[in-house]
Amino acid sequence: MRVELLTVGDELLLGDTVNGNAAWLGRRLADHGVEVTRSVVVGDDLDEIVEAVTEALDRADAVITTGGLGPTSDDLTRDALAKAAGVAVVRHPDLERRLRERAAAAGRELRPTALRMADVPEGAGLLANSAGSAPGLRVELPGGTVYALPGVPSEMRTIMEEVVLPELAGARGPAPTARRILRTAGLWESELAEALAPVEALDGVALAYLPAPAEVRIRVAAAPDRLDDVERRVRALLGPGAVYGVDDETLDRVVHRLLAERSATVAAAESLTGGLIGAELSRMPGASETFVGGMVTYSTALKEKALGVPADLLARHGAVHPDVAAAMASGVRERLGATYGVAVTGVAGPDPQDGRPVGTVYAGVAGPERPPLVIAPRLPVPGDGARAREAIRAMTVVHALELLRRVLLDLPAQPGADPGGGRAREDREV
Amino acid sequence: MRVELLTVGDELLLGDTVNGNAAWLGRRLADHGVEVTRSVVVGDDLDEIVEAVTEALDRADAVITTGGLGPTSDDLTRDALAKAAGVAVVRHPDLERRLRERAAAAGRELRPTALRMADVPEGAGLLANSAGSAPGLRVELPGGTVYALPGVPSEMRTIMEEVVLPELAGARGPAPTARRILRTAGLWESELAEALAPVEALDGVALAYLPAPAEVRIRVAAAPDRLDDVERRVRALLGPGAVYGVDDETLDRVVHRLLAERSATVAAAESLTGGLIGAELSRMPGASETFVGGMVTYSTALKEKALGVPADLLARHGAVHPDVAAAMASGVRERLGATYGVAVTGVAGPDPQDGRPVGTVYAGVAGPERPPLVIAPRLPVPGDGARAREAIRAMTVVHALELLRRVLLDLPAQPGADPGGGRAREDREV
Repeated sequence: MRVELLTVGDELLLGDTVNGNAAWLGRRLADHGVEVTRSVVVGDDLDEIVEAVTEALDRADAVITTGGLGPTSDDLTRDALAKAAGVAVVRHPDLERRLRERAAAAGRELRPTALRMADVPEGAGLLANSAGSAPGLRVELPGGTVYALPGVPSEMRTIMEEVVLPELAGARGPAPTARRILRTAGLWESELAEALAPVEALDGVALAYLPAPAEVRIRVAAAPDRLDDVERRVRALLGPGAVYGVDDETLDRVVHRLLAERSATVAAAESLTGGLIGAELSRMPGASETFVGGMVTYSTALKEKALGVPADLLARHGAVHPDVAAAMASGVRERLGATYGVAVTGVAGPDPQDGRPVGTVYAGVAGPERPPLVIAPRLPVPGDGARAREAIRAMTVVHALELLRRVLLDLPAQPGADPGGGRAREDREV
Repeated sequence: MRVELLTVGDELLLGDTVNGNAAWLGRRLADHGVEVTRSVVVGDDLDEIVEAVTEALDRADAVITTGGLGPTSDDLTRDALAKAAGVAVVRHPDLERRLRERAAAAGRELRPTALRMADVPEGAGLLANSAGSAPGLRVELPGGTVYALPGVPSEMRTIMEEVVLPELAGARGPAPTARRILRTAGLWESELAEALAPVEALDGVALAYLPAPAEVRIRVAAAPDRLDDVERRVRALLGPGAVYGVDDETLDRVVHRLLAERSATVAAAESLTGGLIGAELSRMPGASETFVGGMVTYSTALKEKALGVPADLLARHGAVHPDVAAAMASGVRERLGATYGVAVTGVAGPDPQDGRPVGTVYAGVAGPERPPLVIAPRLPVPGDGARAREAIRAMTVVHALELLRRVLLDLPAQPGADPGGGRAREDREV
């Protein structure tokens, strides 16, 4: 079964919006064993939509469209589907009644334009929308089925989960391959690829490397009954602890789990990241069980005043120094009464600071039993100033959380020896 | 001049990666007056790429492809372009030499697979890549020109800025319409649309509403010489201060500018946002001039210990209360020695806290001259728990920064009266 996606909206072509709907749809369809073979974006133009839908059904069995179902004059998907089907657009009495009821319940008058949401191509099926006003539409064309969904992500997702995915999953056969994501932090794509060459060479196994700041997710695809074995091989080749999580098990979730298993808590002291580590450690529901809070000591003076970093240390070396990271980690741990303190200091740029170049970063972890551990991950500094700044801050968060994970698991502070020469040579335990 | 985008990669169809490249390309091309008329994603499949490129050139004058130029076996764009052009793939001696030199300079051996990056379709032009190993390619096909760029964002962007955009901008005529983004925070799309109906009715003027958490960007499109007048009308209709910034002038940048103009600084005290406000206030290069730092008092005990929120207040009302937000704002302002303190407390969910429902949020700002000002924005709580949590945190950041902006400008704490009944009724100054 081949499915194509068609996203409608000028804002996507103009780049005002990133196409998150297409990514979500691709992921959820893959989860259900349905293959997306093409994804197309067209603007708010009737003929473009008609043409794109018709072409897509020449290639695929079904098309899922998002967008263009709202009440305004640039919402053209229902007209385009009627044109493609050669039918009229008719007002649906049930929908009109429901729209009037919803407006009345909210104490609002129904605006005339809103009634457009009660119009449907003649003969279209309605896809119930428990998250909003207008339903999705199912339109049968000669080449196959069109599922038309709203562009609002919450409504689109609701209709997919409740109506479309069950319907498509019923129509497809058993999934031929299964996929699993193995997550790593602090390792480079090239060294992973080199280390995993023996797995890549296996028949019927496909690996893909999905990079994110300071992380690489390895997507393993194989027959369902081989997946566990492939995962074991990957873990063995990468060495102990290199894979920190599987599928949706993000680094913050792993850290929270490890802390909870030890009845431990953590506090964060941040400089260049400005609060991103705390934001990450508070992302998960229930984070307050293990995350106490943090200090953002963005100014150098605050590092002394709020965290007790020795003034002579700051005077001698400036704020970007491994001993400062260690003192920040110890300081926040003690002052906020947490089992562990995690701290970062560094230069996000665009200008050097205290004589240190952009990309110099120190991450430290202080715990109950041994002196603070500090690493100096060398970060690639991509592109221009503003982009580099954003990337450096994001990579710093990952290196700090990965160091905390390694301390909690008693692993070496840095991931395994370099098999391919690709590792940053300046990575070290300070 | 019509341009189509073709993004190549299984990871995009599978939704492992969001198509940020297409959004960036759309934005930069629009900035240069070049219209993107369609954007297509295909997987790592030779025939699919050939077909998509050929079809695109039936419709458009040029196609920009990204992805599929790397060294691995699933990088198929150069082979596809050779097939579409009916030519062979040949090894380019200059490129081979450069790859060997780069490897030697890095003290690495050149892997045989890496040599694929020296292969080009016969007759292709090279697009210099100052950010990476492999150049982009310019291939002339019967229907038009293909610009093939790497999928790595930093390399793609560099080649676009340095080579492709100047070339395309030279080929197009003068831009028929200009665009401008007017940014608002804390207002709803429906009330904006209602207030701006007189502008929407103008001939030759198009408005689009681009929502983000607690923000709506209004994209105005009109003839270049009318744009200033349209902006004036929008501002007049929305009332003083409703438009906080134009184009890339984000809320954090506006707040920094206003603080700097007043030689003032700010510190943040955060609960449910966990550090996101600090992260936002430290995003901009040079932020340290006006952002001192912050406290993340995620646990209730810390609110007392680290910020001096009165214990009886916390005992009486719990942590989610307007007086707690006020005390946090005053506390962080005094303890961190900033001119202004901004603070938030609330319930991000998924579970209620201290008897308050998910979505209850208080944001406060303390300044030098008057008592702290606190608002209780009512936030829409979208979808399931995890998504709602993320959205509530993001919206809270915007409401807090918008409140700070309004205090700095001596505007009312909440945006103007509700013209259409769409505003949350519980918004109030507490």
